[in-house]
Amino acid sequence: MPRFPAHPFEPLNDGDKLKEECGIFGVIGLTDAANFVALGLHALQHRGQEAGGIVTYEPETGFHSERRFGYVRDKFTSAAVMKLLPGDLGIGHVRYSTAGSKGAAQIRDVQPFFGEFAIGGCAIAHNGNLTNAARLRKDLIERGAIFQSSSDSECIIHLMARSLQKTQAERLKDALRLVEGAFSVIAMTRTKLMGVRDPLGVRPLVLGRLGQGYVLASETCALDIIGAELVREIDPGEMVVIENGRIESSRPFGASKGRSCIFEQVYFSRPDSIVGGRSVYETRHQIGVELAREAPVEADVVCPVPDSGTPAAIGYAAESGIPFVLGITRNQYVGRTFIEPTDAIRNMGVRLKLNVNRSLIKGKRVILVDDSVVRGTTSRKIKDMILDAGAAEVHFRIASPPTAWPCFYGVDTPERSKLLAATMTEEEMREWIGVNSLKFISLDGLYRAAGEAQGRDHASPQYCDACFSGEYPIAPADKLDEGFKMKTAAE
Amino acid sequence: MPRFPAHPFEPLNDGDKLKEECGIFGVIGLTDAANFVALGLHALQHRGQEAGGIVTYEPETGFHSERRFGYVRDKFTSAAVMKLLPGDLGIGHVRYSTAGSKGAAQIRDVQPFFGEFAIGGCAIAHNGNLTNAARLRKDLIERGAIFQSSSDSECIIHLMARSLQKTQAERLKDALRLVEGAFSVIAMTRTKLMGVRDPLGVRPLVLGRLGQGYVLASETCALDIIGAELVREIDPGEMVVIENGRIESSRPFGASKGRSCIFEQVYFSRPDSIVGGRSVYETRHQIGVELAREAPVEADVVCPVPDSGTPAAIGYAAESGIPFVLGITRNQYVGRTFIEPTDAIRNMGVRLKLNVNRSLIKGKRVILVDDSVVRGTTSRKIKDMILDAGAAEVHFRIASPPTAWPCFYGVDTPERSKLLAATMTEEEMREWIGVNSLKFISLDGLYRAAGEAQGRDHASPQYCDACFSGEYPIAPADKLDEGFKMKTAAE
Amino acid sequence: MPRFPAHPFEPLNDGDKLKEECGIFGVIGLTDAANFVALGLHALQHRGQEAGGIVTYEPETGFHSERRFGYVRDKFTSAAVMKLLPGDLGIGHVRYSTAGSKGAAQIRDVQPFFGEFAIGGCAIAHNGNLTNAARLRKDLIERGAIFQSSSDSECIIHLMARSLQKTQAERLKDALRLVEGAFSVIAMTRTKLMGVRDPLGVRPLVLGRLGQGYVLASETCALDIIGAELVREIDPGEMVVIENGRIESSRPFGASKGRSCIFEQVYFSRPDSIVGGRSVYETRHQIGVELAREAPVEADVVCPVPDSGTPAAIGYAAESGIPFVLGITRNQYVGRTFIEPTDAIRNMGVRLKLNVNRSLIKGKRVILVDDSVVRGTTSRKIKDMILDAGAAEVHFRIASPPTAWPCFYGVDTPERSKLLAATMTEEEMREWIGVNSLKFISLDGLYRAAGEAQGRDHASPQYCDACFSGEYPIAPADKLDEGFKMKTAAE
Amino acid sequence: MPRFPAHPFEPLNDGDKLKEECGIFGVIGLTDAANFVALGLHALQHRGQEAGGIVTYEPETGFHSERRFGYVRDKFTSAAVMKLLPGDLGIGHVRYSTAGSKGAAQIRDVQPFFGEFAIGGCAIAHNGNLTNAARLRKDLIERGAIFQSSSDSECIIHLMARSLQKTQAERLKDALRLVEGAFSVIAMTRTKLMGVRDPLGVRPLVLGRLGQGYVLASETCALDIIGAELVREIDPGEMVVIENGRIESSRPFGASKGRSCIFEQVYFSRPDSIVGGRSVYETRHQIGVELAREAPVEADVVCPVPDSGTPAAIGYAAESGIPFVLGITRNQYVGRTFIEPTDAIRNMGVRLKLNVNRSLIKGKRVILVDDSVVRGTTSRKIKDMILDAGAAEVHFRIASPPTAWPCFYGVDTPERSKLLAATMTEEEMREWIGVNSLKFISLDGLYRAAGEAQGRDHASPQYCDACFSGEYPIAPADKLDEGFKMKTAAE
Repeated sequence: MPRFPAHPFEPLNDGDKLKEECGIFGVIGLTDAANFVALGLHALQHRGQEAGGIVTYEPETGFHSERRFGYVRDKFTSAAVMKLLPGDLGIGHVRYSTAGSKGAAQIRDVQPFFGEFAIGGCAIAHNGNLTNAARLRKDLIERGAIFQSSSDSECIIHLMARSLQKTQAERLKDALRLVEGAFSVIAMTRTKLMGVRDPLGVRPLVLGRLGQGYVLASETCALDIIGAELVREIDPGEMVVIENGRIESSRPFGASKGRSCIFEQVYFSRPDSIVGGRSVYETRHQIGVELAREAPVEADVVCPVPDSGTPAAIGYAAESGIPFVLGITRNQYVGRTFIEPTDAIRNMGVRLKLNVNRSLIKGKRVILVDDSVVRGTTSRKIKDMILDAGAAEVHFRIASPPTAWPCFYGVDTPERSKLLAATMTEEEMREWIGVNSLKFISLDGLYRAAGEAQGRDHASPQYCDACFSGEYPIAPADKLDEGFKMKTAAE
Repeated sequence: MPRFPAHPFEPLNDGDKLKEECGIFGVIGLTDAANFVALGLHALQHRGQEAGGIVTYEPETGFHSERRFGYVRDKFTSAAVMKLLPGDLGIGHVRYSTAGSKGAAQIRDVQPFFGEFAIGGCAIAHNGNLTNAARLRKDLIERGAIFQSSSDSECIIHLMARSLQKTQAERLKDALRLVEGAFSVIAMTRTKLMGVRDPLGVRPLVLGRLGQGYVLASETCALDIIGAELVREIDPGEMVVIENGRIESSRPFGASKGRSCIFEQVYFSRPDSIVGGRSVYETRHQIGVELAREAPVEADVVCPVPDSGTPAAIGYAAESGIPFVLGITRNQYVGRTFIEPTDAIRNMGVRLKLNVNRSLIKGKRVILVDDSVVRGTTSRKIKDMILDAGAAEVHFRIASPPTAWPCFYGVDTPERSKLLAATMTEEEMREWIGVNSLKFISLDGLYRAAGEAQGRDHASPQYCDACFSGEYPIAPADKLDEGFKMKTAAE
Repeated sequence: MPRFPAHPFEPLNDGDKLKEECGIFGVIGLTDAANFVALGLHALQHRGQEAGGIVTYEPETGFHSERRFGYVRDKFTSAAVMKLLPGDLGIGHVRYSTAGSKGAAQIRDVQPFFGEFAIGGCAIAHNGNLTNAARLRKDLIERGAIFQSSSDSECIIHLMARSLQKTQAERLKDALRLVEGAFSVIAMTRTKLMGVRDPLGVRPLVLGRLGQGYVLASETCALDIIGAELVREIDPGEMVVIENGRIESSRPFGASKGRSCIFEQVYFSRPDSIVGGRSVYETRHQIGVELAREAPVEADVVCPVPDSGTPAAIGYAAESGIPFVLGITRNQYVGRTFIEPTDAIRNMGVRLKLNVNRSLIKGKRVILVDDSVVRGTTSRKIKDMILDAGAAEVHFRIASPPTAWPCFYGVDTPERSKLLAATMTEEEMREWIGVNSLKFISLDGLYRAAGEAQGRDHASPQYCDACFSGEYPIAPADKLDEGFKMKTAAE
Repeated sequence: MPRFPAHPFEPLNDGDKLKEECGIFGVIGLTDAANFVALGLHALQHRGQEAGGIVTYEPETGFHSERRFGYVRDKFTSAAVMKLLPGDLGIGHVRYSTAGSKGAAQIRDVQPFFGEFAIGGCAIAHNGNLTNAARLRKDLIERGAIFQSSSDSECIIHLMARSLQKTQAERLKDALRLVEGAFSVIAMTRTKLMGVRDPLGVRPLVLGRLGQGYVLASETCALDIIGAELVREIDPGEMVVIENGRIESSRPFGASKGRSCIFEQVYFSRPDSIVGGRSVYETRHQIGVELAREAPVEADVVCPVPDSGTPAAIGYAAESGIPFVLGITRNQYVGRTFIEPTDAIRNMGVRLKLNVNRSLIKGKRVILVDDSVVRGTTSRKIKDMILDAGAAEVHFRIASPPTAWPCFYGVDTPERSKLLAATMTEEEMREWIGVNSLKFISLDGLYRAAGEAQGRDHASPQYCDACFSGEYPIAPADKLDEGFKMKTAAE
């Protein structure tokens, strides 16, 4: 009997990795802006693979909007689609699927959203999550607003439509003062490109320059692809309005101390992006170094779980002196998932993506370095593969602390009860996964790797680390309405 | 002014990597064979990305054939297509585009090819290249054969149709005794799965077992994905016929000493495939070790050109003690190419795929490890990117000898005059690429890395290395007819 | 030299026929309502060919909406799409393209429109045209409404959203009391199917019954296709609300005397539909009889311009005693238009659709009966074809009075200066078209054919005939704002 | 309860009309030949709706072939596809689906077929059916031919490939001398356009001229659409070879007296096509006249079953003096069939296509004129519709004799046992259909209407009328092998 139908396991990525929900990008002052936006979104594709959209403005023909399901490289690169998007000013958005239980994803949920106001049109692209969107939506509908999407981000457009302010920038401020949660927003009017980060700066946003033009993007890798240089990060709580080559900065929410998402460094951001003047790759490499110090073990090889565990594995190997090997090969032709799979293929799960290089693993004591453990199901499958290949011992080293709390700020997380670390101790997890040892980096170790020499400032943490610590810097109003329980003193 | 339109360069892969032309796979004795064939082809997708095809046989409904352009994961995984391919016996093929100058690729050129003979139907999937196909085709057409494709492999079907032998296996032998060149062939009739390698065994073919079923595949990674175990490699010059769970082996071409393609180990095969009992990854790692010994240089970091240069870079770093860094990030959302690109995007070339991690490179002396240099154009672009990122020095180390001769045995190579090493010395190449140093592994070093402790046996080489040595083990009849000049004593 | 490139003429239907802009349909109380809606819309396809949409409601899963470009038979008949539209209550819409100059038609302009109000969802399908939509839209946007379409019908949804009434029916009344123009509206909530006609009843709307269910439709032919029986026409100014098998009728606009569109009988409606208890076919046949009396001529054959001129031609032949022949054959495989035609084909124009049966026409004096003359370009082409075929004389008889004024009530008409009858006398038209004689039916003759024995009541006309008479029963507010000049006393 | 699900009936056209299997067209000497071929095939679309193909030749780039499923207007009119078909010489084919029981229609069965012979390429388009194809195919396969399609027409290509003749024209003659059955063939080489009709001329073929170019087509309506003039019909048994503006005619099969298909006049050909110098419309009109004489009946209206019964109904009305009415309206938006219909829609059957105009029928004695009765199922449904609409009496008059025998010469007919007239007398048919009277035109009456003043020459019939008479002018070899029984002396 063939073995594989006896091993029914789910696809690798289904719910076992946290998923960033969006990447955003905008340019002003560059001929054929849509080309640049498409390239920038392509570089940000890791932040959202389900769908993308681009809006441009051209004085003669007005605003133009194209929204499509699929990859940027497939849906936004033909001359035909670029012809539909003329103008020197444009913004774009890629999103991860958050299709609910009631049906398939719909194009009307794909950003940027556009509103035609009495003072002119405005398009917005939003990365993050509004924690009071349900409350706002209810209020707006009672006042006659008609929502076209199921997206919380649409609230911003309706709030702007009802603002009594005379300029788009002031209307955007009005709207954003009413929302709560995490947001990096790029907006455009007929003449302006605007960027805002919420007071804590949970989601990233950077400013770049290319020739006479300016660029706003989620990450610096999107500046690199078009050859733009990094000017600086937008500050938490800052708003910039760019028009006619001039940048105006303001603080619509007053003074604030940022707490950006530390998980961006562990997993979401591309390793070649720069955060705080330092490459994400270096932070990840340093996480491996810290892990090797915190949780050493005797072994023959250090092997990454591809691809996101690789820099930490290199760091671990360098610090420990144990040889680094690519013992697991990733099939580069796997997309997000096999569409409409047959049962036989569905059950193939991890094998469709990963294959163990037996001759490197057989008889060896293997240190596996992975970025995170969410539900733990993938960890088990990878352990099975490694043992099937004849490993003598398997030691898991995880480049993040235990993920014990859901994120409400723009990351797709399983509900708390599905998080392995919410229900088990480290030892229970080790046993459940079935490995010889399992160690997570400490929260302080993570902060040190991220450049905070003294580790986490527990009185006033430098980052948002709610998914590890349960300390939510913004109260999740809608979730509390739904019955979510915050961490108690006892936990 | 934006910088990038000033840097017009072509896409990364256009003609600057050698390309394998096919992967083949077949199973017998497994329920819903098409599912297994699809999985096997998915694992072999690196051997051919343009199109794929599957043929199955089921006693009630006969032979079924589906051929599609696109990836296996997109075109051969839906329940709908699998339903069209019933049966316990099936073969498949993935191919790389070799669309000529006269027009677009056509589905009729996609294998497997099928012929309905007087003794029943037969389908074949061929990896390799027939060096006397043009001569054979001319003869066959003069005798009334009607070719449906522009593929040389179709000759095999017509030769079989005209054979006077009484069995399909004997007809296949008849046909293959008339062809010259490199071929690994998988064929199927209503009851048999057959596999053959040419006398030199230029292209690979392995035999596996899964439950009561048997599997033939180009590489062992395709056995792994379905959980099959490797039985052995098919020998050069061997034919196996599998029917009712029994395997018959024969030597239709008489005794022969194999000379399999050494470039399979350098670049074509997946690193997790096993060749001669040893993983390709290990050979590549060892190439890096040999390179570090043959061509050491003082430097700060060893950085691979992703992804195929990585194992050699790890080996180089390990042997030299210089730190290994992933200084170049590959965008995993790039497919083969941006379809129908606009000019702006076309000119983006290498940036669409690769981005330098500046903070790792800036001010450093960098050893770049790449698998090969074909036309050299990509090497220049990568050097530009590394220098733009502020590298102090760039030293190229190449994991293969200079590629100075075209391959006529199933690999897509530029004509000789386009090969950089055919027209320049190593020093001229260094200068043209513009790096501080450039070193290729020696032919002997490559053989040693592949496990031949004494290096190349120049009297009777263990491998086909014509692309490096110009010593063609099979005279390329059609090419000689076209005017190709073999290596002279003087060269 | 081929003759046809020398005859460059435009496609037959481009601007030379008036076009109805919509057909609407709704059912309540019938299992799998979407199937019935699809059939009803199929029967109404002649009222709009560009796009269609269906909305259904099912208690467990809520509202469902599918909108597509293309024919109902192609886009709304697969099991896959029907599965997306569950429920016993549904409405639908087919529309003719009115894509403006700024770009391609967009799916967001396709009805039914849907609004989620504080009191629940509501979908509407509108046939007609609001003559004060531009004014309303401006007001609504100033108050914060965000329009998603360029369609005037969307105003109705926004007006409903802002109504303070407590029920959907009252909100719909509130909204419709604010709009001006021609409208037949079908709306649905979670439990109700509603139908309304404007005070003049310009556009048609009928009520039918099928088993326990009720049906609303633009024409009776849409009742026939599902086997429903006609209950009655909805009165001008009437609103019906159907819920739980009960029908409530009201008069939200007070008492009114109807003036339905007489052109529906001449051209828009299907000949097998019943208006005022009489089939449209009979009216058209009678128009031919009246024409034969008003404008007799000696001739050999009476030939219709297919297909809409056929019943009048039969009537003309019967009354005059001149033989009826189908001298022009229509190619039934012509769709609306050849998509993306090459120049050669574009210039084929009328020949793609019509071919003259030479042997019936050669040497004959031919009476051609057509339904209307709008710009006159098609009439010229048909005359050319008839003369090319060797006709001795050509006499045009037109089944409607001269079309001299644009319609603002839901019919797509060229601007006034493009209407042949707005700029020429009958004799000038005859000369321009180039025929031996040209006669239009008189306005009184048309009224008689429609069953008004005394002809038109000039003091209080029984129908809207603004396109012939220039007497607009509803002042076209937006058009007057744009500068349109009403008929003066002098005209 | 809704009535219609209680009336489950099949779609109108499924098996209840005979179907022509092909239309063919070719041009030489006209710039951008493919445009003309597309137009010609569009005019011949009634002869085959499933798929079409065009082959062209251009000296620089060689032969070009495009084959597609769908209508010509949809698949062969874009500039993109026309660009793929350059050259001044081209042929085309439209075909009706004859997909067998083993699976879906396949593009490889779509003509024209192309063969690359030692003396150059040749493409052929075939209308008709070869009655000895199975025998030929078996022979060819035994000799090593590899068939690519399941089409009998492919035999012609293989026979040409094996011919020892030195020219394509001679090879085509060689091939056609070996085949039996009905064939009109258009073929092209690099320089020649060729046309042949079988010795009996069963299927039609006409020659036209446009400027310096020549045209071959199944019917004259395809000349009309491109503005070509009719030169003459190709004679039965004639072959024409057109090259450099010169036409050579020969008689490869010796002298023969033609017997073209009389059903072409009754139903297949378009009414505006000319056969034997007379329009098909006139013949059909005259059939009505003959019917009125042979089978008069007292009634109130004559009503055609649209569309093919219309000319005969006009003739019947004219001869009988009973008023002609269009009592059944055809929905012009129905294509061949609703694709993938849901059950509810499948059961709608005839209502999707036809609707009775009740007010014209109610209380009337109705004469229904239809073209033919095959299985009789449609006749019953139409009778039901007419009676549902309140007709007092229904009298069927059929414009052809009883169809009692299958056609083996290129028409898709049910097997004999499914033909109503093969198993019932006229009175039994009348009763089964359920009408007040049922009369078919006599065979002599049909011949008279077709212009044979003396009726049928029973000793040597002027037409092939096997479907009515059972007298097969060519023995159907393959069918006899399958067990088909010819008419016996007793029948």
